[in-house]
Amino acid sequence: MKISARNQLKGKIVEVAKGATTAHVRIDIGGAIVTASITNEAVDELKLKVGAEAYAVIKASDVMVAVS
Amino acid sequence: MKISARNQLKGKIVEVAKGATTAHVRIDIGGAIVTASITNEAVDELKLKVGAEAYAVIKASDVMVAVS
Amino acid sequence: MKISARNQLKGKIVEVAKGATTAHVRIDIGGAIVTASITNEAVDELKLKVGAEAYAVIKASDVMVAVS
Amino acid sequence: MKISARNQLKGKIVEVAKGATTAHVRIDIGGAIVTASITNEAVDELKLKVGAEAYAVIKASDVMVAVS
Amino acid sequence: MKISARNQLKGKIVEVAKGATTAHVRIDIGGAIVTASITNEAVDELKLKVGAEAYAVIKASDVMVAVS
Amino acid sequence: MKISARNQLKGKIVEVAKGATTAHVRIDIGGAIVTASITNEAVDELKLKVGAEAYAVIKASDVMVAVS
Repeated sequence: MKISARNQLKGKIVEVAKGATTAHVRIDIGGAIVTASITNEAVDELKLKVGAEAYAVIKASDVMVAVS
Repeated sequence: MKISARNQLKGKIVEVAKGATTAHVRIDIGGAIVTASITNEAVDELKLKVGAEAYAVIKASDVMVAVS
Repeated sequence: MKISARNQLKGKIVEVAKGATTAHVRIDIGGAIVTASITNEAVDELKLKVGAEAYAVIKASDVMVAVS
Repeated sequence: MKISARNQLKGKIVEVAKGATTAHVRIDIGGAIVTASITNEAVDELKLKVGAEAYAVIKASDVMVAVS
Repeated sequence: MKISARNQLKGKIVEVAKGATTAHVRIDIGGAIVTASITNEAVDELKLKVGAEAYAVIKASDVMVAVS
Repeated sequence: MKISARNQLKGKIVEVAKGATTAHVRIDIGGAIVTASITNEAVDELKLKVGAEAYAVIKASDVMVAVS
């Protein structure tokens, strides 16, 4: 499947923390850590686990820009 | 200002392309390119330009995870 | 690629309308029409055109519920 | 109330699962199932329950397009 | 129609600016101005114009919190 | 840090309710209450508590418009 989302950042899963219905998955993208908040269901279905290769996928309209 | 967004990825702006009302800004995050779709107005207000240091800011609930 | 997004609705593209930087793509999902607002760039890259099979992909946290 | 969201898909609720603060509601849209992640509070306020008619409401900028 | 979105802020439209496909609508919510980026199509359909009463509708999962 | 998000509404926190992994924070914006759904982690990191001054930050593309 190819998706329209402009951001598909390849990395390695470094943490999977499940809550009641929502899980937080952290992916190391060449040093930067990206946190995703997804359903527990998706974690199970994609068999996400620490050490596995994964992509952080983000629609361009969901990215903001900040300057210091 | 400190913000709740879990993802604040530091990088360098590599492209600023304005449309009619919406602009696309690309930030190089240690090799990975992140594309943000923001208003032209924000580009002007933050004086975003190629070469400047900037952060891609993304709420965790807007990040999906994919596996190949 | 398998993605965590809970909603991956299969259908057929019935309209592709490009703007300055943003395009609107309409997909017929078994009778219901779903409108996606994506970048022109994504339209080109995925070679989206009327009549082609496509999926509307939506993260569960982006879906609201309404009652009349 | 009429809302700007381009996608207002009519269907029937087939599941309501509450978590600690977040609930998952599934709506059958003419055969396709759409999952919404909303607050428990909204579930109570709208009296959402299995079998009731409901709309899945999605802003066009939150819809991605994928091809296989 | 009643919607699950936690934020339905009542105000008055103070600006409607159309772009190629996307419009920016500004609503005065008791002094604070809220900017919405919606489709031109929605502007036409809802007959949005300066001076009219309107609601800014925002899902709770799309709101971030910042402190200075 | 200055951010591109068009909506940065100043107010006072009136409620902080933590769930398993997700918290709901309510901010009083000159009378209107805005609800944010953010991670528990962000609540701790920003030391959010009732009575504190805070901003509700919302990207323009996440705001819809409704009329009655």
